[in-house]
Amino acid sequence: MKTLATLENLIDRLREIQRINSAASVLSWDQETNMPAGGGTARAEQIATLQGIAHKEFVEDETEKLLGAAVDLTTGYPLDQDGELWDESAQSLLREVWRDFNRARKLPSDFVVKLSRECSLAQQVWAEAREGNAFVDFLPNLETVLNLKREEAQYLGYAGSPYDALLDYYEPGTTIAGLRPLFAQLKARLVPLLRKIQNSPVQIDDSILFHAYDTARQLEFGRLVLIAMGYDFEKGRLDLSAHPFTTSFHPTDVRVTTRVHEHDVTSCLFSCIHEGGHGLYDQGLDPTHYGTPLGDSVSLGIHESQSRMWENCVGRSKAFWRFFYPVLQQTFHHQLRSIDLDHFYAAVNRVKPSYIRVEADELTYNLHIMVRFEIEQELIEGRVKAQELPELWNQKMKEYLGIVPPTDSQGVLQDVHWSLGAFGYFPTYTLGNLYAVQFYDQARMEIPHLEDEIAAGQLLILRQWLGQKIHRWGRMFTPERLAQRVTGVSLTPEPYLQYIERKYGELYRI
Amino acid sequence: MKTLATLENLIDRLREIQRINSAASVLSWDQETNMPAGGGTARAEQIATLQGIAHKEFVEDETEKLLGAAVDLTTGYPLDQDGELWDESAQSLLREVWRDFNRARKLPSDFVVKLSRECSLAQQVWAEAREGNAFVDFLPNLETVLNLKREEAQYLGYAGSPYDALLDYYEPGTTIAGLRPLFAQLKARLVPLLRKIQNSPVQIDDSILFHAYDTARQLEFGRLVLIAMGYDFEKGRLDLSAHPFTTSFHPTDVRVTTRVHEHDVTSCLFSCIHEGGHGLYDQGLDPTHYGTPLGDSVSLGIHESQSRMWENCVGRSKAFWRFFYPVLQQTFHHQLRSIDLDHFYAAVNRVKPSYIRVEADELTYNLHIMVRFEIEQELIEGRVKAQELPELWNQKMKEYLGIVPPTDSQGVLQDVHWSLGAFGYFPTYTLGNLYAVQFYDQARMEIPHLEDEIAAGQLLILRQWLGQKIHRWGRMFTPERLAQRVTGVSLTPEPYLQYIERKYGELYRI
Repeated sequence: MKTLATLENLIDRLREIQRINSAASVLSWDQETNMPAGGGTARAEQIATLQGIAHKEFVEDETEKLLGAAVDLTTGYPLDQDGELWDESAQSLLREVWRDFNRARKLPSDFVVKLSRECSLAQQVWAEAREGNAFVDFLPNLETVLNLKREEAQYLGYAGSPYDALLDYYEPGTTIAGLRPLFAQLKARLVPLLRKIQNSPVQIDDSILFHAYDTARQLEFGRLVLIAMGYDFEKGRLDLSAHPFTTSFHPTDVRVTTRVHEHDVTSCLFSCIHEGGHGLYDQGLDPTHYGTPLGDSVSLGIHESQSRMWENCVGRSKAFWRFFYPVLQQTFHHQLRSIDLDHFYAAVNRVKPSYIRVEADELTYNLHIMVRFEIEQELIEGRVKAQELPELWNQKMKEYLGIVPPTDSQGVLQDVHWSLGAFGYFPTYTLGNLYAVQFYDQARMEIPHLEDEIAAGQLLILRQWLGQKIHRWGRMFTPERLAQRVTGVSLTPEPYLQYIERKYGELYRI
Repeated sequence: MKTLATLENLIDRLREIQRINSAASVLSWDQETNMPAGGGTARAEQIATLQGIAHKEFVEDETEKLLGAAVDLTTGYPLDQDGELWDESAQSLLREVWRDFNRARKLPSDFVVKLSRECSLAQQVWAEAREGNAFVDFLPNLETVLNLKREEAQYLGYAGSPYDALLDYYEPGTTIAGLRPLFAQLKARLVPLLRKIQNSPVQIDDSILFHAYDTARQLEFGRLVLIAMGYDFEKGRLDLSAHPFTTSFHPTDVRVTTRVHEHDVTSCLFSCIHEGGHGLYDQGLDPTHYGTPLGDSVSLGIHESQSRMWENCVGRSKAFWRFFYPVLQQTFHHQLRSIDLDHFYAAVNRVKPSYIRVEADELTYNLHIMVRFEIEQELIEGRVKAQELPELWNQKMKEYLGIVPPTDSQGVLQDVHWSLGAFGYFPTYTLGNLYAVQFYDQARMEIPHLEDEIAAGQLLILRQWLGQKIHRWGRMFTPERLAQRVTGVSLTPEPYLQYIERKYGELYRI
């Protein structure tokens, strides 16, 4: 059997390239958390330079030579010409490197640099436009990015829609054709459920969440929950940023951010738990495989499954609050002393169509994704112009959620993704929601008394299970194979739908 | 006349390389201010990778081709083969690029990577060893770095001592032979002056500085002074780090750090002013020349002249405190209400031999440098082994300052420099002290009523003068030429010595 040892030169090269990518990630993190306002233009150039170098080194003849010695470069099949087979790790590594290489070599390095620069700049313009509710200010940058992404799809090639070429980057193997029935199935059961909830006699009062809560204490509580989850502060940090995110420079340096609103006790809390779920995944990757696909996360859908599982299946469960609500009550004695657990639990699970995706409840969240999924296709396929976006957005919001945002800041400008060129990213959020419940159901079957443990504040047992089942494997398995290995079946929306119907059925007495 | 426009391709290349160096600086800044403890090893590799790439790109044939088209690569003389001369900017740029290129090409890229990695690691070990007062823990890393620096000197070549090859990097043209008489001159007048001060009937009581001062307020005051100096927070930040430093990623993103001790009101204050002086220089460089020598600082000695001028000539002057002492009194009413200006002014100027260089007064500071200057030579020339350092250190401290530090943490382990491989750096501090007074004397002659302006809190006028005379020129002139242009003469210790003798003569009634 040939092992990873045979691939040492290729791996050294990948590791070197990853160090450049990690450096670019440090610069991006810094841009979001620390960079003074004036530094933006220079920073965009610096990040673009690093990404250009990383791309150039990756697609160089030397990589092709090293990779070509191990796989057929046209098909990706491992070469066994000397009669010896590759072991499973080596096969997985080669499959994934070939996939990345094959994609990267289709893009000229100049194009990569240009895309990186334009996205950094667009992000900065977007942030200001959002702040000032001025879509027109963002429009020229959005058009530039959009055109570049269309160009990228052409470079990459596709069978069905150019949008497929972009989807595949975030979630390998995903296509419009594959997603449409999935979304249709969700829509068919979520929309009627939403209607029932809206017509339910049960009215949940969540006003207690929006009293004044000291921001420093909110942060402290978020930090406490992260520690309980097993997030390792020796290998991580918690900072503030306009939009919570997680980034990793190495499994020994994985950073999460949050935001704190004095008049919303849920914002900091759930974003800490959410990003903590991402952080645990990145801290759980095997550092010996840093730089290779075996030290990388499987896909954005799987990554999101980790954050959503912690945020929703755990963080919005009764069990979780059995332990943590008394702690929260102690922290905010004045505000919460007369609110009982059931009231608080209901409040953090209230279903209500709202404008902002990241603040949406577990049910309507996917409707927000459907809005974006449909708009993205039309944008990338060129059936809709960027300037038509605000109108289209509001129209889709009306259709799916029954509400129209009063401003673009609360509408089409709310998400950073399009400024970053991340078209095709949104659907992975819904995939993450589905994977989350599918994995969590399995965890409950395999871990004895999981909910009792959680109710006793013992969260580490779940982190350990996820580490063993998912984190440590990196990209050893495709998302599909991973789901099969962990749960016995491929991705299916059924567990999520049953979970939602059960949870809200109880809460709203439907 | 041929201008910079003719050099466009070369400049583009330099700019690209500088972006990589700037990225490495972001990673270093992050390491000192934010990085979680566990991230150190991976970070050292990431920085080393970037520095290796920057070095490799710089010494590549393409640079040689572009540079060789404009200068004689052996002598550095500009080529005027087509009869047209280069203008002054282009000549300066070519002179400095040739100097850098000539130096860089002597070093193999593998060596640059290794040196970078070992220094990052040594720095981390040093920080722990200093914390724990354990020189032996640091010894192996110090030996590694020392051997690499000796090796570097061999690569670079030298006429007199291998130490000269290292000196020249920080202060172009500086040699042991040039520095020795300078230090001898200082020693000849500073040591007797110190003795007179120690025998003076005037005893300054500075105990008020070491009462308890709220750290948040100290930081606020430091920030206030930075703003008064003209440090632009739209293009900079102030953070905390174990050792105050300034770093620049671009003139639009220049960051200073400080430290705050509750029981020493001077530490945060003077490090803010000191680093602010560095920061003004970096913010004052011409951004259109970013990446080329014309957008870079002249030398460390000149850089230090800016920090020391602000810290000492301004920050420890009576004029400065005429305005700022009432503000400080308001900030720390309880501690300072009964202390008058003269008392406070004397306290922050008390002369007393002490263990820690960065806390030394203006007089004994240079004695600290002489200790290091002599030890460095012996280390690099191989006459002293790293393991003998603690003993040698204490012996020299006794000789120059008459005191022996009780621990290595307060002695040989106090400075970060040797862990970073920065042998040859220390002498630039003394050069900075001398340049500072020489420039400041000139400023007082040229700016009407400068000290009255300062006494009215108007510091911007000095920043503007420095910007015009020094900052904006980058490396257009050598340090020597710059001193001549600004003050009419080359570097001379006379202004500094007269300033010191006058200032302390008054304070100590000598």
